[in-house]
Amino acid sequence: MKVLSQNQAFGGMQGVYAHDSSATNCQMTFAVFVPPKAVEEPCPVLWYLSGLTCTHANVMEKGEYRRMAAELGLIVVCPDTSPRGDDVADVLTNWQMGKGAGFYLDATEKPWSDHYRMYTYITEELPALVGEHFRVDMSRQGIFGHSMGGHGAMTIALKHPDRFKSCSAFAPIVAPSTADWSAPAFEKYLGSDKAAWRQYDACALVEDGARFPEFLIDQGKADQFLENGLRPWLFEEAAKDTGIGVTLRMHERYDHSYYFISTFMDDHLKWHAERLA
Amino acid sequence: MKVLSQNQAFGGMQGVYAHDSSATNCQMTFAVFVPPKAVEEPCPVLWYLSGLTCTHANVMEKGEYRRMAAELGLIVVCPDTSPRGDDVADVLTNWQMGKGAGFYLDATEKPWSDHYRMYTYITEELPALVGEHFRVDMSRQGIFGHSMGGHGAMTIALKHPDRFKSCSAFAPIVAPSTADWSAPAFEKYLGSDKAAWRQYDACALVEDGARFPEFLIDQGKADQFLENGLRPWLFEEAAKDTGIGVTLRMHERYDHSYYFISTFMDDHLKWHAERLA
Repeated sequence: MKVLSQNQAFGGMQGVYAHDSSATNCQMTFAVFVPPKAVEEPCPVLWYLSGLTCTHANVMEKGEYRRMAAELGLIVVCPDTSPRGDDVADVLTNWQMGKGAGFYLDATEKPWSDHYRMYTYITEELPALVGEHFRVDMSRQGIFGHSMGGHGAMTIALKHPDRFKSCSAFAPIVAPSTADWSAPAFEKYLGSDKAAWRQYDACALVEDGARFPEFLIDQGKADQFLENGLRPWLFEEAAKDTGIGVTLRMHERYDHSYYFISTFMDDHLKWHAERLA
Repeated sequence: MKVLSQNQAFGGMQGVYAHDSSATNCQMTFAVFVPPKAVEEPCPVLWYLSGLTCTHANVMEKGEYRRMAAELGLIVVCPDTSPRGDDVADVLTNWQMGKGAGFYLDATEKPWSDHYRMYTYITEELPALVGEHFRVDMSRQGIFGHSMGGHGAMTIALKHPDRFKSCSAFAPIVAPSTADWSAPAFEKYLGSDKAAWRQYDACALVEDGARFPEFLIDQGKADQFLENGLRPWLFEEAAKDTGIGVTLRMHERYDHSYYFISTFMDDHLKWHAERLA
């Protein structure tokens, strides 16, 4: 693992690291914030998955999570959103496909399957690396994310209810397999058999029996992607009568940007800290 | 005035605006955060001046000021650091001179004097524009900044003690006319007569009799520019026995970045709010 940068912040340390990933078969970059409390004892770890077009850097620079994470004693890990590098397949003219748009799935179709294995990267390889190098208490993990990363967080929590004690999302895409916004990417990554798409779709997972105790979802009403991409009400419907708790908060005037995310970041960090205590 | 963007954040509004400036003879961009309280009544205004290489956007994205400014009811204005545009003189190979490096002074030497009139822009033209378009209480103004912008804030406060009720700085360059870091730019902007430089140098201003009640200065001890550019102890010395209060806080392990600034942003906003109440 290479250290790309380390900066003191809020009494803790914001670092950026790179490593050769076997899951994605390329060099991957990720950010880790370590709160001051980690000097004394292992701390809970919170995974933040970013949205389309982002790298690890967007939330690190604009997410405003460090003050509260330092106060609550949370380690925050922010991975990249796709494999990277010159030999990684891409569609330069489509921001919803290819680099920056890994959708946290393991692609099965060529050429995507050579590198686009973000599900394995996020759920297996990166946790092992983080567990080895940082003072984390892996018995206390939470996961959250934004947009495509909200989709990633919710699907991963639903598939690993024993590993994660908490999950939340900012403006998640809750049913990517049926949204105009994401279905074309799913077809290229996973092929035309839509049965294979359901494991990466929060609504379909719930329909197929997956369970997680509760979700916090914040959504701006002025979000330009609300109707054709995100549709959080579909998850509320899917969760009805399943025992899954859904706290969906709709916010007037807020859009899809980090101005929205940073506004509600403290609420999410507290939500997780309460469940990771 | 043109609206470039407006985003809801922390119950208020982060906007970015552009206008044709007569002071700098070019189009200028600036950011304004308006807290929710401004719906009810005019709010105090806090001017944040950015450092070398920055635009209005760096602090807007990384400064983490909105949460506390919303809570305290402060309007925060973040101007650019220099004139901009294809016909503005520049030194492409020098980040300490030209675009992004206006030093908040009015240049007197050609070709710089055609556009590099940031002192007049910040102290006259922009306040008039902000006063016209936003719900500001101009009887309650504070000013702060980072690095070159800390220099700007301190010199402007020292020259306008009746206008500003508060001043603070993150890692300010307190004696730019004698620092290797900035003296070459001063010579190009202001000519070789060093007497003309003193009005833009916080230490020289104090030596020449300028007064301001008190300053808060935060400085990281791991700042790579501490010894050859910033030297805040020179201001402590200059202020000794003048009646000027200087609270200089030196912080282990912090560098010159926005990770440092954002860590202490809340303290600065509270410092100003107390004095603008």
